[in-house]
Amino acid sequence: MDQLSLQNPVFATYVIAATLLILKAVSMSWLTVVRMMQVKGGFRSPEDIRKTALNPEPNLKQLEPNEYVERIRRIQMNDLENLPFFLAAGFLYVFTEPPLWLAQVLLYGYVVSRLLHFAAYFTARTHDTRATLWTVGSLILIFLTCRTLLAALGY
Amino acid sequence: MDQLSLQNPVFATYVIAATLLILKAVSMSWLTVVRMMQVKGGFRSPEDIRKTALNPEPNLKQLEPNEYVERIRRIQMNDLENLPFFLAAGFLYVFTEPPLWLAQVLLYGYVVSRLLHFAAYFTARTHDTRATLWTVGSLILIFLTCRTLLAALGY
Amino acid sequence: MDQLSLQNPVFATYVIAATLLILKAVSMSWLTVVRMMQVKGGFRSPEDIRKTALNPEPNLKQLEPNEYVERIRRIQMNDLENLPFFLAAGFLYVFTEPPLWLAQVLLYGYVVSRLLHFAAYFTARTHDTRATLWTVGSLILIFLTCRTLLAALGY
Repeated sequence: MDQLSLQNPVFATYVIAATLLILKAVSMSWLTVVRMMQVKGGFRSPEDIRKTALNPEPNLKQLEPNEYVERIRRIQMNDLENLPFFLAAGFLYVFTEPPLWLAQVLLYGYVVSRLLHFAAYFTARTHDTRATLWTVGSLILIFLTCRTLLAALGY
Repeated sequence: MDQLSLQNPVFATYVIAATLLILKAVSMSWLTVVRMMQVKGGFRSPEDIRKTALNPEPNLKQLEPNEYVERIRRIQMNDLENLPFFLAAGFLYVFTEPPLWLAQVLLYGYVVSRLLHFAAYFTARTHDTRATLWTVGSLILIFLTCRTLLAALGY
Repeated sequence: MDQLSLQNPVFATYVIAATLLILKAVSMSWLTVVRMMQVKGGFRSPEDIRKTALNPEPNLKQLEPNEYVERIRRIQMNDLENLPFFLAAGFLYVFTEPPLWLAQVLLYGYVVSRLLHFAAYFTARTHDTRATLWTVGSLILIFLTCRTLLAALGY
């Protein structure tokens, strides 16, 4: 059977994990938009305080950093530091032909760790909680990558 | 026919869209370099105000943010928040075996939306114009991702 | 022989280069963590100055930017601006069926350029050294991308 086919359950597992994470990442952009519209601020470009249909009463304060918006930007930044590398590592891991149960534990485990990391960051839990959840995901990513590297080297 | 072959027109469509966007993203780095050299500023690291062949007359002001350079950095940041996820989503979408016309509309449509977004951001159009163009691309990305997720789930 | 198989030496070359770079990127996150713990600062979220097991004596200064930490963040940012695009471009380049020696020169050359760029940035070499190493990697990325685009267009 072709490895890269949605009929291959390991590849389908990867595709489900990857698309959920992409939706998660894209949601951060939309959440930033929602919060900027709620507080009518947290903008970044000089032209954003021009009078327009979406911003009828502009003022200079709208360009100042706004913690309510910045929190989502930090969460998104954390996604950018992690998800693109998982998307690549998880894909290449499929070529190592792992058992399905292990692929599911690792790939779905990563998705869960990132959703919990989001929940902890979003609700401003202590750093220790957030760091623990990030660490789980990061260790999964490192495992996937090392396993794939060894397979490519012939081990 | 093999799905992942440049002979498959849907995959070739993806490869053309992907490579154009990669060139677009890389251009932002070069544009930042060009602008930093034009204004001899917008640097970020303490060592960048050492006297060198490229910076014969260094001064402390070179480390201050420079809006002419920062604009390109914001455009690049917007690329980083979007393009890596499109590169993954568009690739996985190929496995859903879409009709060629639909793949072309979505994938080339995304490329066009990003080039127009760049043009609007670069020339400092109002936020509403920029946001509209970003929204078109984001909705295409969400569609690609959801369609692929459903296919992987067997729908 | 299947192009996307670890038995294909060109694909194995890509997988080795890609996984090394993913490990490199993930290391930046860990290095940031290590440095934040060393200086007990460089934090970014208000909740990070709550009293916890990992931060028994919090104070407001911990939220100020710390150059020792910021240096790693800048290196990581440079990775985010480059590596995801290389991961995609290098993968698609495999479909152009390049000779193995050329794939090795380009893909391993990119890895080496990024490791040297890291060494130069980490040890605060002058901007000219860092820029030269970045340029080598960027030119390889542009070559991979253009070659793949031409192949997809049928040239």
